[in-house]
Amino acid sequence: MKLAILGSGAVGSSVAELAGEYGHEVVALADSSSAVVDDGGVDVAAALDRKSAEGAVGAADPDDALDADYDALVEATPTTLGDAQPGFGHVETALERDRHVVLANKGPVAERYGDVMDLADDSAGEVLFEATVGGAIPVLSTISDFGAGQITAARGVLNGTANFILSRMAAEGLDYEHVLAEAQDLGVAEADPTFDVDGTDAALKCVILSNVLSQGERVYSLEDADVEGIEEIPGTALDLASEDNRTVRLIGEATPDGVTVGPRLVPQNGALSVTGTRNIVQLETEHAGQLNVSGRGAGGPETASAVLADVGRLPPLE
Amino acid sequence: MKLAILGSGAVGSSVAELAGEYGHEVVALADSSSAVVDDGGVDVAAALDRKSAEGAVGAADPDDALDADYDALVEATPTTLGDAQPGFGHVETALERDRHVVLANKGPVAERYGDVMDLADDSAGEVLFEATVGGAIPVLSTISDFGAGQITAARGVLNGTANFILSRMAAEGLDYEHVLAEAQDLGVAEADPTFDVDGTDAALKCVILSNVLSQGERVYSLEDADVEGIEEIPGTALDLASEDNRTVRLIGEATPDGVTVGPRLVPQNGALSVTGTRNIVQLETEHAGQLNVSGRGAGGPETASAVLADVGRLPPLE
Repeated sequence: MKLAILGSGAVGSSVAELAGEYGHEVVALADSSSAVVDDGGVDVAAALDRKSAEGAVGAADPDDALDADYDALVEATPTTLGDAQPGFGHVETALERDRHVVLANKGPVAERYGDVMDLADDSAGEVLFEATVGGAIPVLSTISDFGAGQITAARGVLNGTANFILSRMAAEGLDYEHVLAEAQDLGVAEADPTFDVDGTDAALKCVILSNVLSQGERVYSLEDADVEGIEEIPGTALDLASEDNRTVRLIGEATPDGVTVGPRLVPQNGALSVTGTRNIVQLETEHAGQLNVSGRGAGGPETASAVLADVGRLPPLE
Repeated sequence: MKLAILGSGAVGSSVAELAGEYGHEVVALADSSSAVVDDGGVDVAAALDRKSAEGAVGAADPDDALDADYDALVEATPTTLGDAQPGFGHVETALERDRHVVLANKGPVAERYGDVMDLADDSAGEVLFEATVGGAIPVLSTISDFGAGQITAARGVLNGTANFILSRMAAEGLDYEHVLAEAQDLGVAEADPTFDVDGTDAALKCVILSNVLSQGERVYSLEDADVEGIEEIPGTALDLASEDNRTVRLIGEATPDGVTVGPRLVPQNGALSVTGTRNIVQLETEHAGQLNVSGRGAGGPETASAVLADVGRLPPLE
């Protein structure tokens, strides 16, 4: 498939680098201020070298990538809240051109799910967004394989930064501020970790899950979610939990009826107490009990694998 | 889709009972000595009642089910080794009629994978077999979504009976014979548990995994697998492992290059030390690290969910 990739951060550049291995061709690659478009196939290594050296992937305008002759648009620009722009506009343009869209950007399907589905209904293109929930972990494809109607709830650890902080606090007896600083030094936490530690990032993923599970019955956005973060958890709470063979994890829960995210006590050796930056999702099924899927919930190549798995699922365009 | 279901044991009868909920229609249902065929839709509840009361699902011959007007044949007769008959013959008949096949029976894809793939290549029908590996757990669909070439190895706990026995031996300090008798009383182990405890069942699943992972480069059958069971493990081995925070699990490993099954030391609180009858599979990916999928590896409705997920993946026949 011919891909136009918007966004040249960790995910977008990994998709560009791995596309060939999956049998696809990159015909356009854009960052926030430039683009390179080549119907014969972009030289990805050269474009990424230019970005490192000169700060621009190419001489073209980012909008030129949207006009390129692609089969699928890969939207990997940063997640934005509210109107989810400019990501939403990119999705709109591609679907109106009857092209497929694969999202790594959570904004359009968390904040404007109904609008995206309406556009998809009127398009020959399809929209897939496995990479928006749990990085490499096949959460949405598993729900799709089972049938969304067969899944009554999804719950799990969906933010690696928050999980790293809670794991370290429990293992080392350190307080929140100390471990956050350490995580920032290690590059596990961003300079501004607000959305990771206040539960917003996990909530966006759960909003997407509830949108999928409710099958159009209801449409959720971030403002519908009941969200609490981990900033106020004292180290003593983890010590107390530990005496009871339990620990604290930031758990998100998505059902067709709503979204909650907050710190929860979980068994110390249970499935939900994954350590470090790993993510896990538990799916409650109608007839097959509980399924657990876990793996790396973030990272460039990991998230790119989910994007490219989505690309592989798309039907050929007429 | 119109389904003909061969086999009316726990899996076949669950597929028949749940098919309607998934939007499919049962046009034939057979057990080993009888069948019921109805182009307008079999009355599944009545057929299963007849089987309980009279020992036969209907008045027709089992072969009549093979001749029915179905889109997909669900092969849920018992797994047989060697020539994998009569299951293989059922697969052959359906594919030669250009119909789809969904297998719960491991025999044809473990023992005669090359023959099945050759038949599928010449057929308008497709062959899917998610239910043959790990019951409800979406192992094969995850491999398919990522691309078999992206998975370098699959390893895990693939037999619930053996895992129940090892879990109980470790937790209660009991010996193998004692726990096996208990498992038989509970219905977790069959009267003849040979294939579960000698590693054959796990090996068949790993053979199927290696066949999928090698993408036709090599074809495996049970005789290619290096297999050791759990019958000889003394309780003292589990006690020793426990002192080192480890335990013993029957671990199968499948790569494109071969199959091994045997008891292995694993960390006591690690992902592979699932307890009771749960199964887990770890997939090693090229670019996305390790993915773990776990859930119920056996049971009628659980395995039927995997069968019906496969049915949902099949394209309409021309």
